[in-house]
Amino acid sequence: MPKNNLPVVILVRPQLGQNIGAVARAMSNFGLKELRIVAPRDGWPNARAAETASGGEGIIHAATIFADFDAATADIHVAYATTARPRDMEKRVADPGAALPELKTQVDAGRRVALVFGPERTGLENEEIVRCDALMTIPTAPENSSLNIAQSAVVVFYEWWKQAQLPAVARELPEIAPKEDWQGLFTQLEAYLDEVNYYRVADKKIIMWQNLQNLLLRGAWSAQEVRSVRGMLRSIWERKRKGEG
Amino acid sequence: MPKNNLPVVILVRPQLGQNIGAVARAMSNFGLKELRIVAPRDGWPNARAAETASGGEGIIHAATIFADFDAATADIHVAYATTARPRDMEKRVADPGAALPELKTQVDAGRRVALVFGPERTGLENEEIVRCDALMTIPTAPENSSLNIAQSAVVVFYEWWKQAQLPAVARELPEIAPKEDWQGLFTQLEAYLDEVNYYRVADKKIIMWQNLQNLLLRGAWSAQEVRSVRGMLRSIWERKRKGEG
Repeated sequence: MPKNNLPVVILVRPQLGQNIGAVARAMSNFGLKELRIVAPRDGWPNARAAETASGGEGIIHAATIFADFDAATADIHVAYATTARPRDMEKRVADPGAALPELKTQVDAGRRVALVFGPERTGLENEEIVRCDALMTIPTAPENSSLNIAQSAVVVFYEWWKQAQLPAVARELPEIAPKEDWQGLFTQLEAYLDEVNYYRVADKKIIMWQNLQNLLLRGAWSAQEVRSVRGMLRSIWERKRKGEG
Repeated sequence: MPKNNLPVVILVRPQLGQNIGAVARAMSNFGLKELRIVAPRDGWPNARAAETASGGEGIIHAATIFADFDAATADIHVAYATTARPRDMEKRVADPGAALPELKTQVDAGRRVALVFGPERTGLENEEIVRCDALMTIPTAPENSSLNIAQSAVVVFYEWWKQAQLPAVARELPEIAPKEDWQGLFTQLEAYLDEVNYYRVADKKIIMWQNLQNLLLRGAWSAQEVRSVRGMLRSIWERKRKGEG
């Protein structure tokens, strides 16, 4: 467990440098330090991001770049995605005021937590949402529910900072596998299911595979448990192959 | 009491049109409708404000312009100012999470409430702060406590919206005089005190007069009570004049 465990901020495919800068600024306003960026549209470094960070320049300079969502979340235990519209998915959804106290408990227990934001126009892809543990939607008036990424970040980080001022929770939480272990499980399982033509109709695969990942992820297994499940699946798989051969 | 009583947003001497637009956008995101602007630096209308309002265009077009702070607050019962730095003043200070539930109670009781924001660079003048009833300071990390006006507005309006979702509080609150009654009292009293050279040393007037206004305002008097105090002061004043004459 890192000594000063803090949530990591992950921007997925951000478009405008000024938005990256505004997020870094808000991070520095509310005590966050580590920024990860997945495939920024305009490359990296981005001069406009540094210009608009206004106190968050250090965060911009220390930001790390990743090729895809899975790489950026490999060491993360629990990922919270901020989404504008509700997704039709079996995920817990909470507003930031309710989600951040829970998140603080995770951080206090030493888990690596990520706050994930999608691209400005389109938001996160469903296959990325699936691999997050919970969704946050900022409550807005129905007449204008469009918040830009900088506004959303301010609200979420502000709620983080309110929680961060509270004393650490002494409670121990069960160990939970980092995302790269889950990614390994999903890759293995998807390959098996594809090979046996589990979905039959290709159209159905997308939703069925999302539901299956959601359901497995909700188990919040430890690294050992993920390994056990992978071993069990492999045994079943190999037995089946023998039966065929 | 207005049927749909909502807090009024007052921007005092805002500088950049894009900030006015961003505030209007955040108002529309969080269900606020009435924007008042005191002496906008670049005049009015401001094309940039409308361009950047993004869903809050109607708020920009309906915004009303005032020459000074007192005119903009004449019909307001309770004014909450958002300030970046703590002022050395006898005012209640709270963070938005604590202040907005109280504000909601005032709104539910039919009082006209204002959320006041000062100019980008300098913030509100002390003589304006004095005439507000409470200050809000957004909690930030010590390493970067500089929030811009758009960020501050998002946080305050978001906290408003969280409260606005709760059922109305049935509690009745005592009637409270609108600001124009207080302005009348202060103008009258200041004239008296100047004429009798109450402060002796001009340097001391600023602080002493601020303290006196603060202390009077804390009484939260009704319009009738303000009238009584004004009558009492006038009587004392005229008696003194007779004595002199």
